[in-house]
Amino acid sequence: MTGTREQAIFEAGIKLGALYHQFVGTPISPETAPSLETAIRESIALQPFVREVRVGIDRAMKINEFGYSELKGTMITADVVTKVQKSCCHARLWKKGEYPMMEIIRCYEEP
Amino acid sequence: MTGTREQAIFEAGIKLGALYHQFVGTPISPETAPSLETAIRESIALQPFVREVRVGIDRAMKINEFGYSELKGTMITADVVTKVQKSCCHARLWKKGEYPMMEIIRCYEEP
Amino acid sequence: MTGTREQAIFEAGIKLGALYHQFVGTPISPETAPSLETAIRESIALQPFVREVRVGIDRAMKINEFGYSELKGTMITADVVTKVQKSCCHARLWKKGEYPMMEIIRCYEEP
Amino acid sequence: MTGTREQAIFEAGIKLGALYHQFVGTPISPETAPSLETAIRESIALQPFVREVRVGIDRAMKINEFGYSELKGTMITADVVTKVQKSCCHARLWKKGEYPMMEIIRCYEEP
Repeated sequence: MTGTREQAIFEAGIKLGALYHQFVGTPISPETAPSLETAIRESIALQPFVREVRVGIDRAMKINEFGYSELKGTMITADVVTKVQKSCCHARLWKKGEYPMMEIIRCYEEP
Repeated sequence: MTGTREQAIFEAGIKLGALYHQFVGTPISPETAPSLETAIRESIALQPFVREVRVGIDRAMKINEFGYSELKGTMITADVVTKVQKSCCHARLWKKGEYPMMEIIRCYEEP
Repeated sequence: MTGTREQAIFEAGIKLGALYHQFVGTPISPETAPSLETAIRESIALQPFVREVRVGIDRAMKINEFGYSELKGTMITADVVTKVQKSCCHARLWKKGEYPMMEIIRCYEEP
Repeated sequence: MTGTREQAIFEAGIKLGALYHQFVGTPISPETAPSLETAIRESIALQPFVREVRVGIDRAMKINEFGYSELKGTMITADVVTKVQKSCCHARLWKKGEYPMMEIIRCYEEP
């Protein structure tokens, strides 16, 4: 049997996988990073069981000869908190070395 | 030989194809449509030879039991104007019947 | 603290979210469904902690006037089994009513 | 006015933009490159006015610590030939220096 704690963890994984593969490849520059962060945050926040999303895109990106870059997984820091009944899961996407790592930060109960 | 007119047309096609396949599938609601429109517009405007982009997402979307929808091609109206030297091409993505149609609106010269 | 069971669940969620948002929007027909199923299966199987993936695309798709369709979440049935040390999680994407549902099928230990 | 030659060019642009933004981000390894090439080729070939598609993915990819890579634009060589009535356009995506370049190779008439 899986309980609400496990479901919250599962949902957190879904959201990070979705976020990554929906938006990687998007043309981006330091100037447009804020609008893309907002769009990512608001779109993921719509999905079931999402309690909070924070998204940051690294402005220190390598710009090509045409003046822009492309969103890569390692440029994203994203925190997602899911909630299934009282069970919450806080998970994160971040750049660990050269790899875009997804991991569970903390699971907890909330009234 | 292809000239600047042909290149402007080619670039307009690229932008519409890119826009469509980058963002289709994004979770969306009438409330988040403005932020996604902004992010799409700003990201496509970064690409080479883009002079102007306008993007509209139809708010009359079918909402699922969880209170949101998902971006489909037929929900998008997008106008892209590309410019290669003096040659401009205005092309559009819009819903024609049930199909998301991409077409050239007008090619013209501009000083 | 989260253990291997929770990590297997988290990884299963990531894979289903990734699969969905990477491939939704792909042009498809009943004839090309096999090659897309293979590509999806092989690409997801590369990701960390994946033990098994099965992917099916519903051939009963609505074809447009140009003779093809576009991959939607509700057309996909995908089973993913992740394994973190001895802990396995079997999760699934399937069409529940009109919604593409992702859920945990079973968690178990394996030598 | 735009004729069949211009339409063929426009369609070629659409296909390359679509191909790029649909598949960039897909997990890949040298072993799975053939199945992804097939899926890309077959999916793009379904789209209107496509006469021929060839897709190659560079096997000399940088593998991460988990044994795979992720599809980037610069790893793809794609040739698309579109045909609108008698007008054909051959266009290409290829790696020019560090940038994934899309360009028209040749436009010609065919009976």
